[in-house]
Amino acid sequence: MIDWIRRQADPHPRLEVGIGDDAASVSWPDTDSTLIAVDMLVEGVHFRCPEATPEQIGRKSLAVNLSDIAAMAGRPIAAVVSVALPRSWHGEPAQRLHSGLTDLARETGVALAGGDTTSTDGPLVISVTVIGESPPGGPVLRSGAQPGDRVLVTGHLGGSLDGHHLDFTPRLSEAVALFEAGGLHAMIDISDGLATDLHHLLYASGVGARLIAAHIPLNQLTERAGDGRTRLAHAIADGEDFELLAAVTPDVAARLIADPPFATPLTDIGQIVEGSDLDMLMPDDRVVPLPPLGFEHEVG
Amino acid sequence: MIDWIRRQADPHPRLEVGIGDDAASVSWPDTDSTLIAVDMLVEGVHFRCPEATPEQIGRKSLAVNLSDIAAMAGRPIAAVVSVALPRSWHGEPAQRLHSGLTDLARETGVALAGGDTTSTDGPLVISVTVIGESPPGGPVLRSGAQPGDRVLVTGHLGGSLDGHHLDFTPRLSEAVALFEAGGLHAMIDISDGLATDLHHLLYASGVGARLIAAHIPLNQLTERAGDGRTRLAHAIADGEDFELLAAVTPDVAARLIADPPFATPLTDIGQIVEGSDLDMLMPDDRVVPLPPLGFEHEVG
Repeated sequence: MIDWIRRQADPHPRLEVGIGDDAASVSWPDTDSTLIAVDMLVEGVHFRCPEATPEQIGRKSLAVNLSDIAAMAGRPIAAVVSVALPRSWHGEPAQRLHSGLTDLARETGVALAGGDTTSTDGPLVISVTVIGESPPGGPVLRSGAQPGDRVLVTGHLGGSLDGHHLDFTPRLSEAVALFEAGGLHAMIDISDGLATDLHHLLYASGVGARLIAAHIPLNQLTERAGDGRTRLAHAIADGEDFELLAAVTPDVAARLIADPPFATPLTDIGQIVEGSDLDMLMPDDRVVPLPPLGFEHEVG
Repeated sequence: MIDWIRRQADPHPRLEVGIGDDAASVSWPDTDSTLIAVDMLVEGVHFRCPEATPEQIGRKSLAVNLSDIAAMAGRPIAAVVSVALPRSWHGEPAQRLHSGLTDLARETGVALAGGDTTSTDGPLVISVTVIGESPPGGPVLRSGAQPGDRVLVTGHLGGSLDGHHLDFTPRLSEAVALFEAGGLHAMIDISDGLATDLHHLLYASGVGARLIAAHIPLNQLTERAGDGRTRLAHAIADGEDFELLAAVTPDVAARLIADPPFATPLTDIGQIVEGSDLDMLMPDDRVVPLPPLGFEHEVG
């Protein structure tokens, strides 16, 4: 497979040494900080076949890491991949896995710098590491949110059960645009669900927040989930939206909402407040607490 | 386990953001090139338990990557780890795995920047990525060897079956010292065995080599393997020595051998020649070909 990968590899202007030596070498920008993200996907835990195609698994293994780099407002530069392949995956499925990964690397300008493939008697395991460049002045952390900041979110939430988690687009250019607009205090990508990830951001920042239920952008696809839960419940509790959740000063947020710097939807869904509580204003004017988990019981 | 890892994490002067945000951030030197190495170890393929302790597996998962960075004459800076943990590994075994890894990171000054842990129904899988700094002027590749160069090797060869592959020391400082001596044309670390890895170097450089059997530094430990093969056969064909194999100009090689810049043994075992063949001068003055595999049949 390594030979096959080598033949498929696109030349990339930054890639000085690719597959075939002891390590890869990538020409590096003049940056103060280097960002590193790593994620491992395991068959049966993070995806099941044949619901997920090999191309989708390859794509997702890179995409989740790009989403992490985006959440720091960074720019991804290179990726390496290691795969433990079950015997049934040898040949065409492995090539399809690799092409899903390669396609997304090409779309996002990331140099696929190297990898390691091994056989396993267990399930498929794929681990991707992405390294990238920090934005000027350092990455945007989870910890900078301040009372008064607006809570902004990209895209629509709640589509993961409909397969969105297998074909999402990492919000790389959106993250850079938000950074360049200024006033970006804190950011996270939504991997565990809006409520849980907003709690992570609030906890790291030492603040609370109030969301407005009517403003949360709902994914239309979730009608199809057909499990009796409301679309709002899906949007708040389901994981793997891989949208950006950001705390931005009110003046910049107003400008961004009035004149968005990108085509992806950007929505103001609430406000950072003093304290440590997260709650939500419902359409009937009730205010309900939004714990990290168990949201369904509160407003289901 | 992530919480436990976070509590164990040493502060490292380069680590700006460690575990707990979307990605890690590491302060980066002013380097033209960044090196990346990745290796995945799978239980039952690369190690068996209880022959290998959890500490040894953790240590080895990092060490093999450090050996790859050394082979480029690079300096490792940061590492990230992803692990698929079987249920039987939760708790103490996972902590021992992690401490083996952490101990080696501390010894080598590498910042353990982040990780991802997941459960699996299959065997233990651990993947480590190391990123580092290229030496001035770019990494030392496999491809620069020239006829007339001497073939130098660090340490002793052939001890892997005695467990050396689980406790070897990556030759990081030795690689830098060889680089700084000048005249270092090509280098590789011995992971697949002396014959196979020297073939890799020769093929990449478009040259051949003649080794001198009597000069190959043999590991005394291999007496214990007790499989009837000579120590020379072990030294040539066994993998996972993780010693450095270098092609160096004759004048610099003579100086290095006369006055080694480090305490690790350094031995001149032969010469790079025109052509593409690898052979070996035996003590009885026979010259035997040294194919990448199947050496045992030739001189066993």
